Amino acid sequence: MNVEIVNTGSELMLGRVLNTHQQWLCRRLADLGHVVTRQVAVADSGSEIQDAVREALGRADLVITTGGLGPTSDDLTRERIAELLGKKLVENKEVLAHIENFFAKRGRPRPQKTDVETFVPEGAEVFLNATGTAPGLAMEIEPSEGRVPRVPNPNEVRDSQSSSLRKRWLVMLPGPPRELRPMFDTFVMPLLKREFADEIFICRTLLTTGIGESRVQDFVEVDLQPLVARGLEIGYCARPGAVDVRLAAAGATAEKLVAEAEAVVHRILGENIFGCDDEEIEQVVVKLLTQKKITLALAESCTGGLIASRITDVPGASEIFLGGVVSYANAAKEKFLGVRAETLKQHGAVSEAVAQEMAAGAREKFGSDFAVAVTGIAGPDGGTAEKPVGTVFIALASSSGVEVKKFLNVWERATFKQVTATQALEWLRRAVSA
Amino acid sequence: MNVEIVNTGSELMLGRVLNTHQQWLCRRLADLGHVVTRQVAVADSGSEIQDAVREALGRADLVITTGGLGPTSDDLTRERIAELLGKKLVENKEVLAHIENFFAKRGRPRPQKTDVETFVPEGAEVFLNATGTAPGLAMEIEPSEGRVPRVPNPNEVRDSQSSSLRKRWLVMLPGPPRELRPMFDTFVMPLLKREFADEIFICRTLLTTGIGESRVQDFVEVDLQPLVARGLEIGYCARPGAVDVRLAAAGATAEKLVAEAEAVVHRILGENIFGCDDEEIEQVVVKLLTQKKITLALAESCTGGLIASRITDVPGASEIFLGGVVSYANAAKEKFLGVRAETLKQHGAVSEAVAQEMAAGAREKFGSDFAVAVTGIAGPDGGTAEKPVGTVFIALASSSGVEVKKFLNVWERATFKQVTATQALEWLRRAVSA
Repeated sequence: MNVEIVNTGSELMLGRVLNTHQQWLCRRLADLGHVVTRQVAVADSGSEIQDAVREALGRADLVITTGGLGPTSDDLTRERIAELLGKKLVENKEVLAHIENFFAKRGRPRPQKTDVETFVPEGAEVFLNATGTAPGLAMEIEPSEGRVPRVPNPNEVRDSQSSSLRKRWLVMLPGPPRELRPMFDTFVMPLLKREFADEIFICRTLLTTGIGESRVQDFVEVDLQPLVARGLEIGYCARPGAVDVRLAAAGATAEKLVAEAEAVVHRILGENIFGCDDEEIEQVVVKLLTQKKITLALAESCTGGLIASRITDVPGASEIFLGGVVSYANAAKEKFLGVRAETLKQHGAVSEAVAQEMAAGAREKFGSDFAVAVTGIAGPDGGTAEKPVGTVFIALASSSGVEVKKFLNVWERATFKQVTATQALEWLRRAVSA
Repeated sequence: MNVEIVNTGSELMLGRVLNTHQQWLCRRLADLGHVVTRQVAVADSGSEIQDAVREALGRADLVITTGGLGPTSDDLTRERIAELLGKKLVENKEVLAHIENFFAKRGRPRPQKTDVETFVPEGAEVFLNATGTAPGLAMEIEPSEGRVPRVPNPNEVRDSQSSSLRKRWLVMLPGPPRELRPMFDTFVMPLLKREFADEIFICRTLLTTGIGESRVQDFVEVDLQPLVARGLEIGYCARPGAVDVRLAAAGATAEKLVAEAEAVVHRILGENIFGCDDEEIEQVVVKLLTQKKITLALAESCTGGLIASRITDVPGASEIFLGGVVSYANAAKEKFLGVRAETLKQHGAVSEAVAQEMAAGAREKFGSDFAVAVTGIAGPDGGTAEKPVGTVFIALASSSGVEVKKFLNVWERATFKQVTATQALEWLRRAVSA
């Protein structure tokens, strides 16, 4: 089954807003076993919308449009799609009553410009908008409607005969996320279950850290090859300090295939896997610390508070996170963490000895079970031949003492901070898991 | 000029990642006067990429692809586009040397997998990757190459004769944002100026904070109307805690028109404007503090280190930033900042009195000129009727004493932190400017 999304809106083309619909809809559809084959964004001029929808209907079994259903002059999706399909717009009494009620509840008269929202293409299924006025719309498309010959790709063979007889649906959803999301769940999910016999689709993403993208692939691809031959799809996605391994399969054997693949990857990458699917490493760390009732303190120099900020992004972090010191100046390292002036003088602020004293000091002063300290050279300036930009010392203090590791993270400043923070969190995860 | 973007990546189609490239590239291109006419996302299977690129080349003067240039098996963009255009892939010694050097700097052997990155389509311009390994690529497309008849739209007339003689360029950029963004600025912007410099286009974005989007528009639009009549384009973009006002014009009078508009907006919004174009408020703050030789310390509770992290994202922040305490636990507020137990007991951790003592304590203990303290309820739990989730107290300590302001930032946790940090930075900016 081919699914396409057409996002409309000039604000998208000007880069004023982020297209969160794409991710949200793709994710929801993938969870239902329907992987989106193409997503297109066009301005909200009528001809662009017609082009994009006509082309999408020429390829896909399901086309979902977003935006352009509202009452203002740049809302053209409903009218132009009706025109494309040769459908009349007819007033829908149910929609009218719903919009009247929407404004009555808010003690305001219904603006006359919402009239247009009550007209829907004849024969369309209507999705009443629980959080706004414009209804969503769904139409089954006859084989003759909106169908144009597909541009042939010489490198590929497709069975265009069978696809031209298939059922096609066009779904139009309003632009605001707070309207689109509940409408999708309430109306589109049942429609998909009703109209498109579900094929089982399983997708599992294993999140790894500590190994680069090409090495991750080197490690796992040979052992996964037999499963690929049986239909497993593998994908790799590199993020700063982490690589995602995506395992997916369709059909009756999908679950078994993905589970086998997961076992293979676990066997090979072992503790480099920090979580799966939507988890962030800071969520994993906070969960582990909370489960084990272990408290944490931080002493950050080159990460400048980023580790603390990532930890405190997790709801409930206050259960285990006592606090941190961002000791940017040397005086702050001495005063708040008890780093000795002599150590700073002898070894420099970016040194194993200072990292060691920072972690020990943070653990003692905050009275925490674990403390992590980071000192390094974020750049772009401040490097030397001996300690180039990117040099980092990370220290971990616990009841069994203080350990220090050295890293070389050669990235621009913001990525340097993210990568270093991920390394610190990863070490903490392993230490807590041990 | 028609510009199209083709984003490749199965992780996009599965909804695993947000397509930030669309917004970033559309914004950059719009600022250069080239509004993107269509954006397409497809999976990273070879045939999908070829379909999308061939169709885009059939319509556009400039096609930019993102993703699929890396070393793993799902990186197919380079190979499949070379195949589509009938170009051989040839080894590029400059790229090889660059990648060798990339790994040498990091003290690691070059993985053999990266071999593929050194092969580029014959005749392609190469963009060396300053922050990664895979080079970007640009190719001028001959009229006969990749050109397919456009599917005619019966509702529209286009001059296909003239467009088939026009110059077309295909640009391929790597997927990671930290690689794509500097590469676009370093290589693609000059290429656009060189190849498509047909008309003067001026764009200036004024960054404001402290006023909502519709009020910003209400304030400025009447006074800008005469300039709009002369060809000025205005755009507004709301972001968490900030509103951008985009002023653009094309043609010989563009510079004068945009300068006049800028003066009008400055006159009306005054100190609500914190910067322009790509500036971040933390960059403005660090610049001002550095110019005035004013040192800063922070005491953060609900922002959890985010303000410190944003300040330390700015190169050179160590000149003025002494450090901060992330005082998540009450004991940390007492121990590191000298907040009195009695104050905590009497007023609660989220209170004007505690914010006041946190700021005063941070200023004294770090010995800084200014100190900012933040305490609040990030949520999702912890709110009360009197102090609901979103309640924040921000305090600013300087030689003239400590002032405290109360805010109500009702957002989910991550946005709450960003908005609160922006408010604190904005207050600091105004205090330092005064």
